[in-house]
Amino acid sequence: MKRSVEDTPIVFIGAGNLATNLAKALYRKGFRIEQIYSRTEEAAYTLAREVEAGFTTDLQEISEEAKLYIVSLKDAAFVELLPQITAGKHGPLLVHTAGSIPMSVWEGYTERYGVFYPMQTFSKQREVDFEEIPFFIEAKSHEDVELLKAVAGTLSEKVYEATSEQRKSLHLAAVFTCNFTNHMYTLAAELLNKYHLPFDVMLPLIDETARKVHELAPHDAQTGPAVRYDENVINNHLAMLEDTSDLQEIYKLISKSIHEHH
Amino acid sequence: MKRSVEDTPIVFIGAGNLATNLAKALYRKGFRIEQIYSRTEEAAYTLAREVEAGFTTDLQEISEEAKLYIVSLKDAAFVELLPQITAGKHGPLLVHTAGSIPMSVWEGYTERYGVFYPMQTFSKQREVDFEEIPFFIEAKSHEDVELLKAVAGTLSEKVYEATSEQRKSLHLAAVFTCNFTNHMYTLAAELLNKYHLPFDVMLPLIDETARKVHELAPHDAQTGPAVRYDENVINNHLAMLEDTSDLQEIYKLISKSIHEHH
Repeated sequence: MKRSVEDTPIVFIGAGNLATNLAKALYRKGFRIEQIYSRTEEAAYTLAREVEAGFTTDLQEISEEAKLYIVSLKDAAFVELLPQITAGKHGPLLVHTAGSIPMSVWEGYTERYGVFYPMQTFSKQREVDFEEIPFFIEAKSHEDVELLKAVAGTLSEKVYEATSEQRKSLHLAAVFTCNFTNHMYTLAAELLNKYHLPFDVMLPLIDETARKVHELAPHDAQTGPAVRYDENVINNHLAMLEDTSDLQEIYKLISKSIHEHH
Repeated sequence: MKRSVEDTPIVFIGAGNLATNLAKALYRKGFRIEQIYSRTEEAAYTLAREVEAGFTTDLQEISEEAKLYIVSLKDAAFVELLPQITAGKHGPLLVHTAGSIPMSVWEGYTERYGVFYPMQTFSKQREVDFEEIPFFIEAKSHEDVELLKAVAGTLSEKVYEATSEQRKSLHLAAVFTCNFTNHMYTLAAELLNKYHLPFDVMLPLIDETARKVHELAPHDAQTGPAVRYDENVINNHLAMLEDTSDLQEIYKLISKSIHEHH
């Protein structure tokens, strides 16, 4: 009988936003999640219960039975714990999920390694639909590239190979498109709150701004006072932001940058 | 026979992004668009042809037959042309569509005036669906508020009264949620282009970032290296932006602001 990729038992090292979403999605696809490690017992236990896995808060108790170890820790913690994570694991495949860490970080610690990077914004409070998420795969050996592609392929049709250099660039671009964009929403929500207006009123505008760049290049989709550097409006806005100097500085700098691009 | 609101003949003064989208939407709802004025003959003619209207590039030739004049010019041009736009128009209702200009700008120029502000990002190359767009209405007289609500109500279910002060705040928040957000997309597209990666790969992330704030407050939806101020990642990114000092400055300032909010 042919074994299917879902027969690959998985250990998750980390129980944060990404690990939580990924473990639940793989569990639903029929993968056996062997164990969850987290420094925080509550995080380890909460996720473990949802995916019928064991859990531990002790790196030395991490199961050696799995075929695939998905390490999804904060970058600094990952690099620090690397020796302990890899200790004694010479047979299975170890991957990390960080956009910004090169694959070479594994060198000298273990034999089979790679990167499994789903480019998306994950929060524990919201389950995402993996079908649309691009996965960027890298592994030391060709066989492990194929294995990771097969694992990602159970979740998404958008599975690509990418070098560490490409992944780093993607991650930087993602910080602009996602993290910085979301912070613009946060700043708007704060302003509206100050004026006793509900944030919800912005949702159609947010949706259209996102939909628009499916059709037009972002440069061509740009609107607003900064395009034509409308000083009346801009000075008016800056005056409204006078008591929040960081907002004022952000407004000035981005408006200047928009104008320079047009 | 009862007259319906669609029997209100309309003149558009301006043929830019907003006027184009609004005129076409009202035309499709059965309004008679009497005439289009634009300083640029091509813009006036192009829009006029699409909505079966006359057109002119001469302010003195603007029809006096309409019941509603929708003025949608750049803010500076509007204020400059106000005396000519209002000359001889003492019967009909005149409105502007600018988020940032108070209704009081009309005072002393004419008797019946107001504001008709659809809060959305408009481009000529893309037709938007008005159903979801919030309209913010203001008029000097109660009857004209009702008339404008009825006109907006043919396009959208989200029609609100708002004071000039509220509209100004909404417009400022919209600059953050839409204009600044779109510029983040532009900067990401530039970065990806530099690394020979396609912008399209960002679309699922852009969509999820927008969808997320339908469920979570933007503050709770925030992810990325700046939340926990991950210096490894941030310094790495800043090094990648070394040759584009404006991007580097934007990256620093927004990351600092994100961190201060978390």
